[in-house]
Amino acid sequence: MILNKTTLKALFDDMTSTEKVAQTIQVNGDLVGEGSLKTGPQVDLGFSRGFDFNTAGSVFNVTKPDQLRALQKKAIEESPHHIPYLFMADVIYGFRTIFPIPLAQAGSFDFDKLKKAAQVTARESYNNGIHCLFSPMLDLSRDPRWGRVLESPGEDVYTAKAYAKSIVQGYQGDDGDVSMPGRVAACIKHFAGYGAPEGGREYNTVDMSTQRLFNEYLQPYQAAIDANCQLVMTAFNVLNGTPATGNRWLNRDVLRGRFGFSGPLISDYSAISELQSHGMTTSVEESAKTALIAGVDMDMMTSVYANALPQLIRQPEFAKLLDEAVWRLLVLKNKLGLFEDPYRGLTTTNTGEVLRPEDRELATRLVEESVVLLKNEDVLPLRKGKSVALIGPYADSRLTLGFWASVTGNPMDTVTLREGLKQSYSDEQLTVAQGFNLFESYSNLGAYQHILEKVNGPLQDEQKLIQLALTAARESDVIVLTLGEQFMESGEAASKAHLALPMREKRLLKALADLHKPIVGILYTGRPLVLTDIVPYLNALLVAWYPGTMGGVGIANVLTGVASPSARLSTSFPRSEGQIPVYYAQNTTGRPMGQNNHSERFISRYIDEANQPLFGFGAGLSYASSVAHWQTPSITDNGVLLPYVVTNNSDRSAAVVVHIYVHQPASPIVPPEKRLVDSEFLILAARETVETQAIINQSDLSFFDNKGVSHFQSGNYEFILDVQGQEEKTNIELGGFKQ
Amino acid sequence: MILNKTTLKALFDDMTSTEKVAQTIQVNGDLVGEGSLKTGPQVDLGFSRGFDFNTAGSVFNVTKPDQLRALQKKAIEESPHHIPYLFMADVIYGFRTIFPIPLAQAGSFDFDKLKKAAQVTARESYNNGIHCLFSPMLDLSRDPRWGRVLESPGEDVYTAKAYAKSIVQGYQGDDGDVSMPGRVAACIKHFAGYGAPEGGREYNTVDMSTQRLFNEYLQPYQAAIDANCQLVMTAFNVLNGTPATGNRWLNRDVLRGRFGFSGPLISDYSAISELQSHGMTTSVEESAKTALIAGVDMDMMTSVYANALPQLIRQPEFAKLLDEAVWRLLVLKNKLGLFEDPYRGLTTTNTGEVLRPEDRELATRLVEESVVLLKNEDVLPLRKGKSVALIGPYADSRLTLGFWASVTGNPMDTVTLREGLKQSYSDEQLTVAQGFNLFESYSNLGAYQHILEKVNGPLQDEQKLIQLALTAARESDVIVLTLGEQFMESGEAASKAHLALPMREKRLLKALADLHKPIVGILYTGRPLVLTDIVPYLNALLVAWYPGTMGGVGIANVLTGVASPSARLSTSFPRSEGQIPVYYAQNTTGRPMGQNNHSERFISRYIDEANQPLFGFGAGLSYASSVAHWQTPSITDNGVLLPYVVTNNSDRSAAVVVHIYVHQPASPIVPPEKRLVDSEFLILAARETVETQAIINQSDLSFFDNKGVSHFQSGNYEFILDVQGQEEKTNIELGGFKQ
Repeated sequence: MILNKTTLKALFDDMTSTEKVAQTIQVNGDLVGEGSLKTGPQVDLGFSRGFDFNTAGSVFNVTKPDQLRALQKKAIEESPHHIPYLFMADVIYGFRTIFPIPLAQAGSFDFDKLKKAAQVTARESYNNGIHCLFSPMLDLSRDPRWGRVLESPGEDVYTAKAYAKSIVQGYQGDDGDVSMPGRVAACIKHFAGYGAPEGGREYNTVDMSTQRLFNEYLQPYQAAIDANCQLVMTAFNVLNGTPATGNRWLNRDVLRGRFGFSGPLISDYSAISELQSHGMTTSVEESAKTALIAGVDMDMMTSVYANALPQLIRQPEFAKLLDEAVWRLLVLKNKLGLFEDPYRGLTTTNTGEVLRPEDRELATRLVEESVVLLKNEDVLPLRKGKSVALIGPYADSRLTLGFWASVTGNPMDTVTLREGLKQSYSDEQLTVAQGFNLFESYSNLGAYQHILEKVNGPLQDEQKLIQLALTAARESDVIVLTLGEQFMESGEAASKAHLALPMREKRLLKALADLHKPIVGILYTGRPLVLTDIVPYLNALLVAWYPGTMGGVGIANVLTGVASPSARLSTSFPRSEGQIPVYYAQNTTGRPMGQNNHSERFISRYIDEANQPLFGFGAGLSYASSVAHWQTPSITDNGVLLPYVVTNNSDRSAAVVVHIYVHQPASPIVPPEKRLVDSEFLILAARETVETQAIINQSDLSFFDNKGVSHFQSGNYEFILDVQGQEEKTNIELGGFKQ
Repeated sequence: MILNKTTLKALFDDMTSTEKVAQTIQVNGDLVGEGSLKTGPQVDLGFSRGFDFNTAGSVFNVTKPDQLRALQKKAIEESPHHIPYLFMADVIYGFRTIFPIPLAQAGSFDFDKLKKAAQVTARESYNNGIHCLFSPMLDLSRDPRWGRVLESPGEDVYTAKAYAKSIVQGYQGDDGDVSMPGRVAACIKHFAGYGAPEGGREYNTVDMSTQRLFNEYLQPYQAAIDANCQLVMTAFNVLNGTPATGNRWLNRDVLRGRFGFSGPLISDYSAISELQSHGMTTSVEESAKTALIAGVDMDMMTSVYANALPQLIRQPEFAKLLDEAVWRLLVLKNKLGLFEDPYRGLTTTNTGEVLRPEDRELATRLVEESVVLLKNEDVLPLRKGKSVALIGPYADSRLTLGFWASVTGNPMDTVTLREGLKQSYSDEQLTVAQGFNLFESYSNLGAYQHILEKVNGPLQDEQKLIQLALTAARESDVIVLTLGEQFMESGEAASKAHLALPMREKRLLKALADLHKPIVGILYTGRPLVLTDIVPYLNALLVAWYPGTMGGVGIANVLTGVASPSARLSTSFPRSEGQIPVYYAQNTTGRPMGQNNHSERFISRYIDEANQPLFGFGAGLSYASSVAHWQTPSITDNGVLLPYVVTNNSDRSAAVVVHIYVHQPASPIVPPEKRLVDSEFLILAARETVETQAIINQSDLSFFDNKGVSHFQSGNYEFILDVQGQEEKTNIELGGFKQ
C-alpha cells in the first residue's frame, strides 16, 4: 500500500528547492490551518510572510481529528506536489487511556504488557489521525533532581533496552510496517545523553567518557534502532563539549554509521536555533549549516532552516545534504502510507474510539504491576471490615496523569482513589479528608493556574485541614495517607534541588502519627524523593507514581489485596540529595566497604551517610513470598543457558519479577559491582513452582572501551538470581566463543 | 655535585635484579630501621621474610632527623651498592610552620607569596632530612562533599595552574636543581582526575570526556610538569573505566608522551594492590604486570612489586620496563645529590631549624591574605574601644592546622585566636566562652580519640555552654563567633553528604541572635559548607579555613583592621547540596536564564533553588573600595596585551586581587560562560592608582577537542576586568596568529 521507490523518486526530482526546504520544517498548530495562520507567531518565530506553511513537512500537537483532516486537506490541495503533512504529537505514555508514567512502567518488568499498552496508545493515536509519536524517551537517568526522570525508564541499561524494544514494537508492530492500520511511527528521544545533566539541572551540560556513553547511555537508543524505530530526535544538551543537535560525530558517525539508523533525525523544540545560545554558532546561517552538517533533517519550531537553507544550498554539497534529508522524510511519509491515504486514521468509519473497556482494564493491570511496595509492617493488604480514613489531596484527585499527559489526556477520564476504594468500602467504612493543599499556591503556574484552581478547588486553611484529617483518622481503624509532589513539580523543566516532601505534608503526617494508628503512605510522584525522615512514621509505603487514568482502581486493588504488588524500583531513592548520583551498577572502587586492609577511615564512604540509597534499584515487596534457585547451567555456542526454578511459597497467587544480574570477571574497563542482564515477569498460582531459564548471549556480556571497540572478557562470570531481594549465585567460566 | 651519567650507569649495570626490584619499593618507617623491623607489618603486607628492606628504594613519613640518619646509615652500609634511601613525607602545606590549607592559599591569588611559603616548607623539610614531599596536590575539584578539596587549589583551572607552578618552583627552585641545599623534590598528585569522584564519595569512580580532561582536569598537572616537578603520584580512582594506577594511556601516552614527564611515577598508598579490588586484575602477578605496563615505577606500601616482579622480569620486555623504572629512580636520587651526600640536610651543623620568626611572619601574612570576607554589614573592622565576646571552641583552640598537617605539624606551635586578639584587647574587653563542643563525641575517632580529648578537653553540657556564651555576649558590644567543622571532618576519606553546620552550632547562633548584638561569624572549615540558613543571622562572615600555625594572629589582624582582607573564594559555596556541582565556568546551555524566547518554565534552572551558589568563585570583600578600568588593548604577535588601571578609592592601604576573565567566541567545543585567564595581587596605598597590564597568549585561549587536539578560534573575545565583583568588559577581534 505504498508508492514504489521509482514513483517517489520522480516526485522528489520534480520538487523545487523551495518545496524541499519547506519539507524540513515542523511547526505547531498555531501556524497552520484554516483561520489559524496567525501572523503573530509566524513573525515571532522569524518566518518570512511569504513562507507557505501548507508546504511544510510536519505539524505537531494538533490532536483533534477534524482539525487534522482540515489541515491535511489544505496541504494536499494547496501544495504543488500534494505532499501530505506528517502529524506528530507529544503522546508519551498514552493518548487518552493514560498509563502509568514510564518510570513506573519500567518497574513492572512486564515488557509484554508494556508492549500491549503501547499498542493501545498507537491505536488511539492512529484513530485520531496522528502518524507519529514523540516517544519513547530513552534517556537513562541516575539523577532524581532532573524533572524528566518521569519519562525515563530509569537508571538501568537492561531495563531501558527492554523498555525501548517493547514500546517501539508496540507502536510500530514487530515487523515495523507502520503503514498498517492502528500503528504509528516511534520517534525516540533525545539523542543523546540528555538524562545526565550536571547538577540535575534541566538542559544543562552532559559530560562522560566514551566507554560510559557506549556501555550505558547509548544502549537504549541503539536497542530502539535495532527494533526499527522510524525517527530519532536530537537532545537539547551539550554532550562532551558539543551541543547534541550540532554534533556531527554523534548523529552521523554514531547514529547513522555505527547504529545504522536511516530514518529522519528531527531537532528537539527550537534546538537548532539554540546552537547560538550554546555558543556554538554566531548566526542563523551558521546554525542551519551546523545542524545540516550534523545530520539534522527536520527543524522543529524555528525558522532557521526556512530562512537559511535557500541560500546555503546554492553550494552543491549542502544541496546534497538537503536532498538526503528530504528524501528520508518522504520515505517515512511513504512508509506510513500517506501518499496513498493522507487521511489515514481519519476515515469516516473511524469514530476515533478511545478508552475502550479492555484498554482501561489493561491500564488497571499496569497500575497494579507498576506500584512499588517499599514497606509493609503487616498492614497491607487492608483487612476486610476495618474502616479507613483516606487522607490527602490525592484521595479524590484526578490530577494523577503526570506532566506529559496534558497534550491529549483528560483528567476527567481519571478514576480517583476514593472511587476505586468505593468498590470495596461502604460510606461508613471510608472517610475522606483533604489533609493538605496539593498546591501551595496557584500563582506562578502560568497558563495552568486557572485550570488547576478549577480542578483542585481553592486553597484551604492548613490547620483546619489537619483538624478535619485528625477527626477522620480518629474515627477509623487505618489511615491511608496520600502524599507526594503535585504534577507540575516533575516533567520537563522541573528540576529540583530539594527532594524532601513539603513541610505541610510532614506536619500532617506527624499529627496523624500521634494517633498511633496504622498509617499506609501512598506516594504520588514523578521522581524518586528523599523519604528518609518520613518512612519511620509510616507502617506501609506504596509508591503510586503518576498512575494514569485507572490509577484509583489499580491502587485500590493492591490496597485491598485483589492484586499483589510485584513491581521493583526502576531507579534508586536516595537517602539525601548529597548522595546523588546513587545507583546500583556502580564500580567497586579500590577500597570498597567491608573489604579492605585499611583503617575504618580510609574506605570509600561518606562519614555522615550510608553509601546505599534508602531504597535501591530493584526494591519492591509482595504479598506472597517466593524463592528461586539455580538449576545446572550449560554453555551454548554463543553464551550460556541458565535454568532456574521459582516457587511461590504463599497461599495466594501473585506476580513475581525475577532479576538476573552478572558480576563480570576483571577487565581493563572495570565491571560494575553487578548489572542486570535478564528479567522475567511470572504469575504464580498459590504454592506453584515454575521452571524457566535465562539465555545470556556473549553480546549481553560484552563491553566497550574508550575507542568504542567491543570486547568479551574470558573468565569467571558470577550470575546472581534475585527474587524479592534474595540472592543466589552461580559461577561459570566463559570464554573462547567464536566472535 | 652529582654523579655523571657514566658513573651512575656503571652502578646501575652492576645491580642484581633483586636489587633492582627492591629499588621500586617504598615503605613506611614501621618496616625499616634499627629495632623497627617488625615481623608483623612485614607479614601483614605480604613481604617474604627474606626481603631486605635495607635495599628498598624509599621510606616515607619518618620525619625525625636522628631516625632518618640511622636509617640512611643502615641502607648505605648494608646494601650491596650503598644506594641511599629516598626519604619522602606527607608534607602538604608546611613542615612545622603550617600555612593555611591549599584551598585557602589558592584564594589569596598572591602566587609570589605562595612560592615563598613553599620555600619555607622546603627548607624546613630539607633541614630535617626529607628529600621529597608528597605535594602539591593538583586535583581540580568542584565537589565540596569530597574531603580532599582541602588539599586542592579549588575549582578553577587558571588558579590551579598558577598554584602548581608556585609550589613546585618554591620547593625545587626556578631552575629545578634539587641538589641545592634547602630544596626538595615535588611529587605532584594524584594523576589524574581524583578530584571529581562520583557523588563526592572518596575513592569513587571519575568519568569525563576527553575534552574536559584536557581542557580542565589535566591542566594543573601539566603546569607542574612544565615547571619541572620531579615526581608524579598516581590516583586511587578509576578514570573513564580504568583505574588510574593501571592506566597505560594516561601514564605513558599522556603523562610521558604528551606532557614529556621523565621522572619517577609512584603509586598512591597501596594503589597497585587495589587494582584487584577495582576489578581490573585477579592476582598479585597481574597487578604487578598491569602497573608496570602502565608505567608505575614505584610501589607504595604493598608487596606486589616485591613478590611478583622477580618472576615477571624473566621475560625480557618486562626486564626492560623494570630497568627503565629503576633508572628513573636512580636519576632522581642522583639529582638530589644523594650519591654524594646520602645525609643531605642531616649534617651536624644543621640544627633542623623550624618556625623562624620571619617564616612565622610570612605565615601570618598568608593568613591575612587567605581569609575570605563574605559579608560585612559595617561591623568589621572591629571598632576600637568596643568590647568583644569571643565565642565558640575555635576561640582558643590549637586544632586549626587541618587534616594533613598531622604528620609533621604540631598543634602546640599554634597561636589561637584569643591569643591573637590579646595583642589588641585587655582582659576586660575580651571575654571568651566555648559555646559548643567542637567534637560531638570522642568515640569513633580511632587512634586520635585520646589526643583530641586531651587537647580539646572533656565534652560539656550543651545548655550550660549556651548559658555561659549568652552571659559573655550580654556583657560585650560585639559577638565574634567561631563556627565550623572539626578537622577530622575534612581531608582524606572525609566525604560528607550533608554540608550544613551541626545543629548544636545553629542552636547557639540563634540563641545569640536573640540578643540583637552584632555577630561576626568566623568559619573554620576544610571545604565549602552550606551556610544558606545561618548567613542571615550573621552581620559579618569571615572564612578562616584551617589557617595553620599563625591563624590566631592573622585573623586578629584582619578583625582589628591591621590588615584588610583581599582573598577571593577559590571555590563556590553552594546554597544546598542539591546544586552540586556548582561552579562559575559552566556552559551557558541552550536556554540560559534571562535570555530566551521560552515561557518562564522552559529554561535551564531549578524550580526550587537559584542556579547560582550562595557565594561563588571569586567572591570576597575588602575594607577598601577599589575600581579598575581597561586602557587601550593591543594585539601582539602571539596574543593580546591588555593594560588597565586600578584605583584604591579609600583612605587606607589595602591588598586587592584583580581577576581577568574571557568569554570566548563560538566554537565547536562550546566555551564556558567565562573563565579566568589572569589575576594580579596588588597592594595599593590609600587613594593610589596603579597602571598595569595582562598579557594573554594565544595558548591561554586555546582549547582541546575530544581527540585531544588543540584549537584556537578566531573571533570576538570579550575580556572582563573584575575587581571586587565589579566587571568592566572589552571586546577584541583575535585571529590569524602564527600557530
